[in-house]
Amino acid sequence: MADRNIKLVVAYDGTRYHGWQRQRNEITIQEVLEKQIEMMTGEPVKLIASGRTDAGVHALNQVCNFITRSTIPLASIKKGLNSLLPDDIFVKEAEYAPIQFHSRYSAKSKTYEYRILNRRQPDLFLRFYTWHIPLELDLAQMQACLPMLVGRHDFSSFRSSGSGKTDPVRHMMRAELHQAEEGILKFIFVADGFLRHMVRNIVGTLMYVGLGKIGADGFLKILHGRDRRLAGIKAPPQGLFLTMVHYGSP
Amino acid sequence: MADRNIKLVVAYDGTRYHGWQRQRNEITIQEVLEKQIEMMTGEPVKLIASGRTDAGVHALNQVCNFITRSTIPLASIKKGLNSLLPDDIFVKEAEYAPIQFHSRYSAKSKTYEYRILNRRQPDLFLRFYTWHIPLELDLAQMQACLPMLVGRHDFSSFRSSGSGKTDPVRHMMRAELHQAEEGILKFIFVADGFLRHMVRNIVGTLMYVGLGKIGADGFLKILHGRDRRLAGIKAPPQGLFLTMVHYGSP
Repeated sequence: MADRNIKLVVAYDGTRYHGWQRQRNEITIQEVLEKQIEMMTGEPVKLIASGRTDAGVHALNQVCNFITRSTIPLASIKKGLNSLLPDDIFVKEAEYAPIQFHSRYSAKSKTYEYRILNRRQPDLFLRFYTWHIPLELDLAQMQACLPMLVGRHDFSSFRSSGSGKTDPVRHMMRAELHQAEEGILKFIFVADGFLRHMVRNIVGTLMYVGLGKIGADGFLKILHGRDRRLAGIKAPPQGLFLTMVHYGSP
Repeated sequence: MADRNIKLVVAYDGTRYHGWQRQRNEITIQEVLEKQIEMMTGEPVKLIASGRTDAGVHALNQVCNFITRSTIPLASIKKGLNSLLPDDIFVKEAEYAPIQFHSRYSAKSKTYEYRILNRRQPDLFLRFYTWHIPLELDLAQMQACLPMLVGRHDFSSFRSSGSGKTDPVRHMMRAELHQAEEGILKFIFVADGFLRHMVRNIVGTLMYVGLGKIGADGFLKILHGRDRRLAGIKAPPQGLFLTMVHYGSP
């Protein structure tokens, strides 16, 4: 049989997992998905994702693909996987892709969202899905920083160590802050790629701005400084969602 | 020392618990709270709630109270409990109440909310907080049933067995259906009291109406029939929230 390339769009609640990528001794989303795909196809499978997500980080539309000789119909793959998978992983779409499609290399850009609960009282129903900031934030100052991030920049200041020697230059297309219902703030970032912990380091540094520890000028200095030691703390994982992977223009 | 009556307003995510009321061999919210209060006051404590909630049912503002000789300040009780409690139980308020205040007997009415996710695709982030109905619902027919519930009625048709011989007549002040964001339906019920599983049995029967299994006339017959065997299924617990307990008029 000819090989088929199958693309999946997957949502997951990252709370229980040690991130996307397979690890020895830790439960990961990749491993759980691969095991169930192998169960259905009867073949060993290597699942390629658009990128890793860290422990506790969520995805609304992660994209991954695998090559198979199995002839199981697409509808059965989707239905079968959803009946086998635990209820915190859900396959939203299963479709054929051209054989050369690669979830990571073919991606043009990605959208991440970071959610903050900004009010005095915590909301226990959002404890796995927001970062709770009980102090007043200067939204205007934070807003003023966002356009500085747009464009091509060396984001070394917002890259965590251990990310190797990859080129730290990325093209940020959108950096926005929206006020949603009842104290929820949503940051939206669209870029052609993200360095390790980049969104969480940016959001943590923006919190320094919101709390008045640094000004918008200080934020610009950090960006230009290209040195991780200058930036603020890393925001916790549970507020972060991979919301979309774009294979055309976003 | 004189006895003090301390009233707590508590939010909890019921997912992990076997309901409010203490049970042998099962973890319950009452037990977890009592243990932490005993740890702080050094006294055995009996916590009285406005009413039980079942396994998997949530509360935004459950009210409970306890009598103590401890002189710990209120602010310390709230802060101390929140530092000791697991992150799915949160004490929103701690205040002194008159010594005769009784969370259950003093309550004039309660508000429950039931949340349904009505769209094709499930939302895994709402799996513990909604009932997923993937089929189209006739909202107009369901709306037509709600005024029938308002007023003084014998709600025997919507009471689960095992609820003993308590008077089945209750006064329903409000019964509403609201469309919230992205496929979320919210039922709101305010009554001077609720029989065992009453909200879940009403919502399950309203789903029969929404799905066209019975009409609004059929719903009225069930209410008037005063026989549990006439009603529809019991809605699952995870969509149900105790949102408010009213000690004055609602």
